[in-house]
Amino acid sequence: MKFNNFNVQISPKAKIGKNVKIGDNSAILDNVIIGDNTIICNNCIIGEPLTDYYENPEYENAATIIGKHSLIRSHTIIYSGNTIGDNFTTGHRVTIRENMKIGNHCRIGTLSDIQGFSEIGDYCWLHSNVHIGQKSKIGNFVFIYPYVVFTNDPTPPSNICIGPTVGDYSQIAVFSVLLPGVKIGNHCLVGAGSIVGKDVADYQLVLGSPAKNIKDVREIKSRETGEPHYPWPYRFDRGMPWKEMGFDEWSVTNK
Amino acid sequence: MKFNNFNVQISPKAKIGKNVKIGDNSAILDNVIIGDNTIICNNCIIGEPLTDYYENPEYENAATIIGKHSLIRSHTIIYSGNTIGDNFTTGHRVTIRENMKIGNHCRIGTLSDIQGFSEIGDYCWLHSNVHIGQKSKIGNFVFIYPYVVFTNDPTPPSNICIGPTVGDYSQIAVFSVLLPGVKIGNHCLVGAGSIVGKDVADYQLVLGSPAKNIKDVREIKSRETGEPHYPWPYRFDRGMPWKEMGFDEWSVTNK
Amino acid sequence: MKFNNFNVQISPKAKIGKNVKIGDNSAILDNVIIGDNTIICNNCIIGEPLTDYYENPEYENAATIIGKHSLIRSHTIIYSGNTIGDNFTTGHRVTIRENMKIGNHCRIGTLSDIQGFSEIGDYCWLHSNVHIGQKSKIGNFVFIYPYVVFTNDPTPPSNICIGPTVGDYSQIAVFSVLLPGVKIGNHCLVGAGSIVGKDVADYQLVLGSPAKNIKDVREIKSRETGEPHYPWPYRFDRGMPWKEMGFDEWSVTNK
Repeated sequence: MKFNNFNVQISPKAKIGKNVKIGDNSAILDNVIIGDNTIICNNCIIGEPLTDYYENPEYENAATIIGKHSLIRSHTIIYSGNTIGDNFTTGHRVTIRENMKIGNHCRIGTLSDIQGFSEIGDYCWLHSNVHIGQKSKIGNFVFIYPYVVFTNDPTPPSNICIGPTVGDYSQIAVFSVLLPGVKIGNHCLVGAGSIVGKDVADYQLVLGSPAKNIKDVREIKSRETGEPHYPWPYRFDRGMPWKEMGFDEWSVTNK
Repeated sequence: MKFNNFNVQISPKAKIGKNVKIGDNSAILDNVIIGDNTIICNNCIIGEPLTDYYENPEYENAATIIGKHSLIRSHTIIYSGNTIGDNFTTGHRVTIRENMKIGNHCRIGTLSDIQGFSEIGDYCWLHSNVHIGQKSKIGNFVFIYPYVVFTNDPTPPSNICIGPTVGDYSQIAVFSVLLPGVKIGNHCLVGAGSIVGKDVADYQLVLGSPAKNIKDVREIKSRETGEPHYPWPYRFDRGMPWKEMGFDEWSVTNK
Repeated sequence: MKFNNFNVQISPKAKIGKNVKIGDNSAILDNVIIGDNTIICNNCIIGEPLTDYYENPEYENAATIIGKHSLIRSHTIIYSGNTIGDNFTTGHRVTIRENMKIGNHCRIGTLSDIQGFSEIGDYCWLHSNVHIGQKSKIGNFVFIYPYVVFTNDPTPPSNICIGPTVGDYSQIAVFSVLLPGVKIGNHCLVGAGSIVGKDVADYQLVLGSPAKNIKDVREIKSRETGEPHYPWPYRFDRGMPWKEMGFDEWSVTNK
């Protein structure tokens, strides 16, 4: 249904891996490198040029690397100059600007707007409509829920750009804002609708506007079992690398 | 201007009603059924396949039903496996995932992101950029304003999925979050920027983070007339079925 | 890469200036007027018709004017009946409905949703995902950050439509809501996550839900210099008309 080779544009300067599918109405622009078995759905633009392209006749697109076994859903725009790992998945209408470094096994949801110049580790899941400002740094196994915004300018407008940092395994719930330069530790939970202006220690639940320390996440019970739910890697393994062996064994192997 | 049959793809397995128009650059995929007099504007995808399509060579699209007299604006994506009533209208770039049951006379605004597996009754108006998580249940005559999010996981990440429920005639104002499993009654008003974690009784105005009961909506005066504005069906009839006869007479007829 | 004349539609009723580039898969519809040296990227619709077009065989598109030296990024939809100045820039997937009057040197970011029937002055920068409701009035040099919503109906649903007003040089930070009819003065700063229901005097910082007066913006220090940062035109000149001469000299010249 989607791979009829209707109105597909592939630059002669692009390198396309084996068994890659490109959907109708998609454009793969200069210096894009796509790994084997990756699927680019319809109406995507991969290797979107920077603004300089419109002004400079000598403009050359930077390399844009998308790993193997990835699935880029329709209407997604990925700028040139990005390095993205294997097993990457996007929703629809995702925008990823330049100079991102994204690890393996990441997912970025529908309508998310990644402003570039940031790092995202492995196994991060950004749900729909997440906005990551420039100079953000996101660890591994971080889940970010819809309508979360990472900011970077403490006194707008200015030329200061200091993004937030989020440690491994942390969860940022819907409608939260991380203020410029804030550091979230490991295994934290930022509750829905929080405005986070102060650093958050490991294992803290913070909530509110401004966000305050509420309790240790290890005190939070599951509604289903009545048992502690966090650290969540002991209770949740869908899509995670510890699925077969459990988190403890995996942790030992991956130290 | 929009119906030139440029780059239009219609599956031989789709059933298109009488007097249907399909805009340029749109694709109508397998097993889509479109009612008479419906307009699909340009750059839409109707019958978007599920992820299984990319992996399973035997994949067959589920039926996707869109009723009569509907208007689907440009760049909208409607997944396969949805059942949508008559007189349906969307804004631009709407995404509707699978297994939705949507009644008649509904409107879903620009950029809204409907995650599927939910029910929406008749005459519901979702404005721009509304996010409906899975397992939500929305009654009839419910209006939802921009940047409202329905959530479903109380301890993220988990495999629990319990969506919110909203009763008939309720209004959810901009930037509100309904937390997992919360039940909003009939004729309620959730004020702007509320985080709603507790059930809301019929006719309640709630507001704040966390949302608290403020007053009975019947005590709220219109800025225009100084008279009570709620229950709103007595003061507002644009596009409503009681337009000609008034809400009381219509209610009697529709009991 | 983007200007191959693939699948481009230009109405014979459009007037295209000198040295204009139109990207692949874009449509320029009836009665659009595009100034010299403007670039329309790919997959855009310029001159989107109003709903009446779908019903009325006599429908005629209103004029749609886009000034000189503008850059409209991909997937943007601009309705007919808009008047937009020179040096206009958009991000991706911007939607601008009818009857907007937008000045010179404005920028509207990715995913922003401008509902029409409003005025925006000169040198306004709307970042990603800004929602401007109808009947809003925005001065000059106003910067609006991601996920800000301007509302207009105090008792939804109703037929009342009174938008907010924002004075010159004011800054509205991420995740803020301006409630119907609120007036923000000049040189104000609305802090992140504020719900603003009361008018804001010139030079005020307001913050919170509901937003309260915090202090005079001239008391806010820059994190970089430790010196006062506001009024910001003395500290920030990127893209501003006072870049060469300084704000004081420019102000004298432009009185």
